[in-house]
Amino acid sequence: MAKSTERVERVMVVARKDGRDSVNGRFLIFQFTDKDGPLKGVLWQPTEEIEREIKVNDVVRIKGEMKSYQGAFEIHVSSIVKLSEKEYDVEQFIPTSNVEATEMHNEILTIISAIGNEHLRRLLESIFGDEEFMTAFLRSPAARVWHHSCIGGLAQHVRDMAHIAERVAEVYSEVDRDLLMTGVLIHDLGKVRELEVTNRIDYSDQGRLLGHIMLGVELIEDRMRSIEGFPAELSLRLKHMILSHHGSLEHGSPIVPMTIEAILLHYIDNLDAQARGTLQVLEKETPRFGKWTEYVKLLDRFIYRGEEPRGDDGSKGM
Amino acid sequence: MAKSTERVERVMVVARKDGRDSVNGRFLIFQFTDKDGPLKGVLWQPTEEIEREIKVNDVVRIKGEMKSYQGAFEIHVSSIVKLSEKEYDVEQFIPTSNVEATEMHNEILTIISAIGNEHLRRLLESIFGDEEFMTAFLRSPAARVWHHSCIGGLAQHVRDMAHIAERVAEVYSEVDRDLLMTGVLIHDLGKVRELEVTNRIDYSDQGRLLGHIMLGVELIEDRMRSIEGFPAELSLRLKHMILSHHGSLEHGSPIVPMTIEAILLHYIDNLDAQARGTLQVLEKETPRFGKWTEYVKLLDRFIYRGEEPRGDDGSKGM
Amino acid sequence: MAKSTERVERVMVVARKDGRDSVNGRFLIFQFTDKDGPLKGVLWQPTEEIEREIKVNDVVRIKGEMKSYQGAFEIHVSSIVKLSEKEYDVEQFIPTSNVEATEMHNEILTIISAIGNEHLRRLLESIFGDEEFMTAFLRSPAARVWHHSCIGGLAQHVRDMAHIAERVAEVYSEVDRDLLMTGVLIHDLGKVRELEVTNRIDYSDQGRLLGHIMLGVELIEDRMRSIEGFPAELSLRLKHMILSHHGSLEHGSPIVPMTIEAILLHYIDNLDAQARGTLQVLEKETPRFGKWTEYVKLLDRFIYRGEEPRGDDGSKGM
Amino acid sequence: MAKSTERVERVMVVARKDGRDSVNGRFLIFQFTDKDGPLKGVLWQPTEEIEREIKVNDVVRIKGEMKSYQGAFEIHVSSIVKLSEKEYDVEQFIPTSNVEATEMHNEILTIISAIGNEHLRRLLESIFGDEEFMTAFLRSPAARVWHHSCIGGLAQHVRDMAHIAERVAEVYSEVDRDLLMTGVLIHDLGKVRELEVTNRIDYSDQGRLLGHIMLGVELIEDRMRSIEGFPAELSLRLKHMILSHHGSLEHGSPIVPMTIEAILLHYIDNLDAQARGTLQVLEKETPRFGKWTEYVKLLDRFIYRGEEPRGDDGSKGM
Amino acid sequence: MAKSTERVERVMVVARKDGRDSVNGRFLIFQFTDKDGPLKGVLWQPTEEIEREIKVNDVVRIKGEMKSYQGAFEIHVSSIVKLSEKEYDVEQFIPTSNVEATEMHNEILTIISAIGNEHLRRLLESIFGDEEFMTAFLRSPAARVWHHSCIGGLAQHVRDMAHIAERVAEVYSEVDRDLLMTGVLIHDLGKVRELEVTNRIDYSDQGRLLGHIMLGVELIEDRMRSIEGFPAELSLRLKHMILSHHGSLEHGSPIVPMTIEAILLHYIDNLDAQARGTLQVLEKETPRFGKWTEYVKLLDRFIYRGEEPRGDDGSKGM
Amino acid sequence: MAKSTERVERVMVVARKDGRDSVNGRFLIFQFTDKDGPLKGVLWQPTEEIEREIKVNDVVRIKGEMKSYQGAFEIHVSSIVKLSEKEYDVEQFIPTSNVEATEMHNEILTIISAIGNEHLRRLLESIFGDEEFMTAFLRSPAARVWHHSCIGGLAQHVRDMAHIAERVAEVYSEVDRDLLMTGVLIHDLGKVRELEVTNRIDYSDQGRLLGHIMLGVELIEDRMRSIEGFPAELSLRLKHMILSHHGSLEHGSPIVPMTIEAILLHYIDNLDAQARGTLQVLEKETPRFGKWTEYVKLLDRFIYRGEEPRGDDGSKGM
Repeated sequence: MAKSTERVERVMVVARKDGRDSVNGRFLIFQFTDKDGPLKGVLWQPTEEIEREIKVNDVVRIKGEMKSYQGAFEIHVSSIVKLSEKEYDVEQFIPTSNVEATEMHNEILTIISAIGNEHLRRLLESIFGDEEFMTAFLRSPAARVWHHSCIGGLAQHVRDMAHIAERVAEVYSEVDRDLLMTGVLIHDLGKVRELEVTNRIDYSDQGRLLGHIMLGVELIEDRMRSIEGFPAELSLRLKHMILSHHGSLEHGSPIVPMTIEAILLHYIDNLDAQARGTLQVLEKETPRFGKWTEYVKLLDRFIYRGEEPRGDDGSKGM
Repeated sequence: MAKSTERVERVMVVARKDGRDSVNGRFLIFQFTDKDGPLKGVLWQPTEEIEREIKVNDVVRIKGEMKSYQGAFEIHVSSIVKLSEKEYDVEQFIPTSNVEATEMHNEILTIISAIGNEHLRRLLESIFGDEEFMTAFLRSPAARVWHHSCIGGLAQHVRDMAHIAERVAEVYSEVDRDLLMTGVLIHDLGKVRELEVTNRIDYSDQGRLLGHIMLGVELIEDRMRSIEGFPAELSLRLKHMILSHHGSLEHGSPIVPMTIEAILLHYIDNLDAQARGTLQVLEKETPRFGKWTEYVKLLDRFIYRGEEPRGDDGSKGM
Repeated sequence: MAKSTERVERVMVVARKDGRDSVNGRFLIFQFTDKDGPLKGVLWQPTEEIEREIKVNDVVRIKGEMKSYQGAFEIHVSSIVKLSEKEYDVEQFIPTSNVEATEMHNEILTIISAIGNEHLRRLLESIFGDEEFMTAFLRSPAARVWHHSCIGGLAQHVRDMAHIAERVAEVYSEVDRDLLMTGVLIHDLGKVRELEVTNRIDYSDQGRLLGHIMLGVELIEDRMRSIEGFPAELSLRLKHMILSHHGSLEHGSPIVPMTIEAILLHYIDNLDAQARGTLQVLEKETPRFGKWTEYVKLLDRFIYRGEEPRGDDGSKGM
Repeated sequence: MAKSTERVERVMVVARKDGRDSVNGRFLIFQFTDKDGPLKGVLWQPTEEIEREIKVNDVVRIKGEMKSYQGAFEIHVSSIVKLSEKEYDVEQFIPTSNVEATEMHNEILTIISAIGNEHLRRLLESIFGDEEFMTAFLRSPAARVWHHSCIGGLAQHVRDMAHIAERVAEVYSEVDRDLLMTGVLIHDLGKVRELEVTNRIDYSDQGRLLGHIMLGVELIEDRMRSIEGFPAELSLRLKHMILSHHGSLEHGSPIVPMTIEAILLHYIDNLDAQARGTLQVLEKETPRFGKWTEYVKLLDRFIYRGEEPRGDDGSKGM
Repeated sequence: MAKSTERVERVMVVARKDGRDSVNGRFLIFQFTDKDGPLKGVLWQPTEEIEREIKVNDVVRIKGEMKSYQGAFEIHVSSIVKLSEKEYDVEQFIPTSNVEATEMHNEILTIISAIGNEHLRRLLESIFGDEEFMTAFLRSPAARVWHHSCIGGLAQHVRDMAHIAERVAEVYSEVDRDLLMTGVLIHDLGKVRELEVTNRIDYSDQGRLLGHIMLGVELIEDRMRSIEGFPAELSLRLKHMILSHHGSLEHGSPIVPMTIEAILLHYIDNLDAQARGTLQVLEKETPRFGKWTEYVKLLDRFIYRGEEPRGDDGSKGM
Repeated sequence: MAKSTERVERVMVVARKDGRDSVNGRFLIFQFTDKDGPLKGVLWQPTEEIEREIKVNDVVRIKGEMKSYQGAFEIHVSSIVKLSEKEYDVEQFIPTSNVEATEMHNEILTIISAIGNEHLRRLLESIFGDEEFMTAFLRSPAARVWHHSCIGGLAQHVRDMAHIAERVAEVYSEVDRDLLMTGVLIHDLGKVRELEVTNRIDYSDQGRLLGHIMLGVELIEDRMRSIEGFPAELSLRLKHMILSHHGSLEHGSPIVPMTIEAILLHYIDNLDAQARGTLQVLEKETPRFGKWTEYVKLLDRFIYRGEEPRGDDGSKGM
């Protein structure tokens, strides 16, 4: 009845393909991926056609035996066939934010329309009014793994940060609200170029070699130049906000935040990233099997979910 | 015309008093303090009366010569006389938050009244309804130095965090709003015992030896015991929030935050502390002498204030 | 002759149970444990009964195939049956200290009787004279893994530290011997609540969310309150010793040791933990296969055991 | 005969000017600077004219009393007068590299002419052939303090690195020599904008807010765009070298070096900076008073100079 | 057609052998190694002969089934036979530097002959003129893993460093060239004793317990004593260079470099180690499957190899 | 009556002497020292005789004005005269351990006589039986600053550690007592060469460039060679104990402890150093002025001394 291996058939994306030669012949090591994450695969003695035709980013139908070890799985591939674009839907392979793209589009436009500073508003309109860019922006994840790692994740991240930033600008009335809101909207623009969304999410070459901070400054610099009379100091402040938004050198900012708006941007970014990441961990495991989640490597801890709500006192999770 | 030393007379609080013997006789080293911060003092060959009568926390009238070195000052004391309580007003020596105590009192009561969970609301009423405690709470600073280091600073810190937490609970609707708001209100209660406000702000003995995290848990534990039927898991969650609110071991939490509410509490606390600290730096130097503040040791950086606002575009600081 | 998998039958404790759904049906991932440590297990297509009845902490009889990979093992479960309490002896599953409980009980009582300070002696009698608590204390491990991770480990840890502390108090005669000895006896009391010993050793919920330092202070606070006239400063010193005994913030103490007795307690604790941990590593591998132990992950090193003793010069290990 | 204060008269540059009000009137705190480094100054009860007219970067003639404390000095200013540009020579205030500018100019042109890759050579000609830029480059220091902190320091740094890089490219023949040499020439171009050389060396606003890494990429990006057909991958590699040349995140690179040429650039940069910095320390103190230099704060150590050379064996410093 | 396991036969070296007892009988866990790196092995129910006869460092012929998991491999051994020394050639198991030993020997002698300082030259002649030592030196790897981990690796490391050091001594003319070159030649002599080259490369006992820095100082000390009139200060400087060449305490030097020659030695050593290590990574994977290498654990990054050279512009890797 | 400066006359040791030239003439900066610690001094326009005759380590009579600033003092020297050896007693300038040298000598001999292993006992007799060495050993401090920084400090450190080690060897009976005791006696022998005790305590040149760990191994190696038949493995273990006794690389050991005896040695060393250092801080300030000591820089904390003992309950410090 219980079996240690299973014959399976799955449609997945090729994320890596490496070849090795052994004394007993050649084999290929694959990394496949879909919405549920990565899966390793091994194929012994590949045909010439498989060597030549199967490439990274291809969608393939694989058959083989699923083996488990230490709670992880691996497929020993017996057959692998490349599918044409008509045979699959990309949404199968990459998770999508549960917030509607058009809803996010509208929210972002509303935020922009509330910017009083004309230079900043024109800059934002130039960026988010560019349809081609906006389409890419609305599809972009906010990270390869961890928080907001889904189609639409970047827009959701920016939208949630904007809601918090509005309140922050009220609480600290000395802050330049327009500058802070603009910083929220543009701080991660470089992610549109750093991450490539094909049949899976991965870094682009320039993403790895330059990083989204550098790419974001370049992108914004281009837009500001095209706006006549854009004040030099305002440009300096915006570029500083992008450069410093990771908060410290060891987190990848070449410069620490040195304006009140840059400091707030960093803390709001941090708060949303950690909050959304934690909520994704809590949502993932359904139904619940205990009071604690599995070990979360990126946080180096377990998350306590607690006893089932008893509902009699209006509180959640108690 | 220009002089390198000045004869001065000042009324200050004694913060430290140390005695040393040299080959040429005995002298005392003082640390005085008032609203403007600390001032060192030296007195050679003190009389027996001065040795015996002048104590830490006394308010004294000192006369002497003010000497400067490397931008710091020191007073060479020629006369020191202890004042009686009638001769001074404590407000002279400790800065006070510019927010009214009664206003903060009311805001906190309003926040409590919006808590739906009965256990939590009763706990908060038990704490903040205790007049003696509330008086101490409204006078307490949030820190000995850095952010909110003034009478009323703790209440202002909690109030500002509560305003941000309200928005945060809206943005992440999965979060238990009542638990988060309660966490905000109680996370720093231990500061009321950790810091002593006499004629100056300093750590109490138990503040140094136990710390406000431990003192806060002890305080809340006492209150929860006195409420019949307070759920054990709710108690666990609240104590966990206090213990973990510094976010990591190296910042003094013995436990890292492991619930979504504890994680959010930490990031909101951090945001408000850094924001208020930075704003205090920006406010302090008036009138401005340049685009940059002096070096801020606690942040290991200068803060950029920027050019004077030109007022023509509605933005600040540009 | 040589086989890569083995059919086995073992009686173990369920330490974790997670369920996952794959395209080819459902499977369960187990972590089992016994005296020899943890063992992963996989069960494909579980029956409804198995899903419902097998719970964490149950003792089960498992049959299946043992597979090895990279020196680790995993069992592919074909049958799993829950045992009743009569069918097993808990001592099978958790290692027990090789020191007798009654011997340790007596030694601890002897140490207490030598305490001259009446307040401290009455406090210790109140704690260790409480039979229910003493029973739990004598069963408690000192850690989930690493040093003294066995039934009776905590008592052994405290007993060995006490022997060293006696000498330390002689060498540094300025030290308050009674305070130091009391600190040794109580520093880890919170472990009795942090760790749960059922059919295996694991953290309790409050253990994970509050930690043994906090739980220890709470426990001692309760006892001190019940002793009339217990001096406030003595209470402060004892709580400080518990809070600070990990020695630094990054090791989980919210406060660093600031009295000579707290500093000594920390170093004696450290010495015993590292010594016992290392000795356990050296004992574990019998018979010896070489001059070096396997790599010890927690110490990030190998331990040198050396050549066989030659016995001709009275020295060990040379 | 021996005096604790000295009346002095010096011509220096104003590096900072801060005003403070005390109970006994107003005073100014200055930081002056010249080739020998910084000097603090205090001026009590400044006239309105001094308050208004003396600005940062002005060259002034100051008279006053020099006071020493703990080996540092401070001037108590009795008179301060602003000099016009004709009254001083800027070379008085900033140290100049002992290598001739024209010699360095020629060496750099020679290095460029040896670049075989046409794209890279044209890029370098576009940058270093721009007379205005070249003038600024030849004046630029390589750092505000520490190594090469003098007029011409940047060119000397680049020249010395180039000599080492030539050999490195021979030793590791797999390396792209042209790419490495180009990296050496351009890696610090941003310093020309980061540091301002007026009557003293200081950070510009954009230097502080953006840093030389970002400014260097911007500068090179502009030049590459103006060269038709500049290969995209070559551009990526060059920008990556500038971004990553500090070697690690905590040293201010937002990206670690990921090409062999970027890795070599980092280590050559490091070697020259540390070597030149150490040699400057060794040169500074003449004549020698002992075998060890004073404590070098930036290296957290003393440097051993050793016994006087005895000259009989051809070796130095032995 | 595709198979998940393969029957294989290989000749390898035994690197570790551990025995364990399970409820179903005894098994052995092996680590084998050859030029391609390590391979784990498992053997169930070993015969007495296998238990007794197969030892670490033996060359064995193994037959069994090769299993893959997560891209790693393991062999389930069905037969294992020890080979006599005539049946294999050690070069099969350890990689050898592609530079000829005699070529390296000559280069080192040439470097020595250029040393002007007689004491140093005589010291070097005493060391490298000792044939037995020289033979061991020319076989020694420079590391167990990472850079220069091959027979002859140490000599290649020293030779490449010497070429760079020659240029460095020209660029910084204040440096004592003879001292620097001697430092390069002797800094890693201790590796000859730290690493044992039998049928594989491993640490010796004294290598693990004392380390190559200590062993190197001991070795050089012995040689210096045997040279009459070797100047005490020169001896001090040389020992300091060996002790400090790792550059900082956390990298294993008990002392930081405090002479200009010791500082340069450290940076040249670092440069060559990282350069050669990176080049080995880039060479290893042939033919190329993409623009990036596999993840390099020791550098915590991928290395960018880039697009195929197009050859039309004389540059590599573009 | 109160004066800001005092005319004083003191006899002290010259610890540093640096000369500088200013626009107004030359001056010397001194560091003097005696039992109470260091004192800075300044002398304007020194005579040629003073420049030439006053050297580091000289005992001098200085007259001048004592100035205080920020709680530190400095002397403005008006006259400085070198004393001959007859005119002072070295004990005036360096603190001496309050334990008698002959008492320590006897205790060490007693410890040695209890060593059962003949090789070890003969080694120890060879070292401590060498009268010249023993005299130097009994005078040696254990550190330049911090714990045991006095004549006889090293012997006291070793003696106290030995008392603790005896108990440790009883508690962990698996430990080789003779090896541990020998390790205690020899671990810091290198300090005899690292520190120079003339008229003050300072590092020797070899102390700074090689460190006491290296010097200790060299010293012991020499002794072991002179003992025929000293077992190689025992030599390896002893050298390992010296090398690793700082416990970790970042604390200056090039190797971490890898035997049970080396691990214990490290923890006993640590315990005694921290305990004695703290006790010295507590003793220093007499009479007490409060419950807390001054800030202890090396521990980055205040030490709590507590309320005066009330004597009614037999406890100290409560």
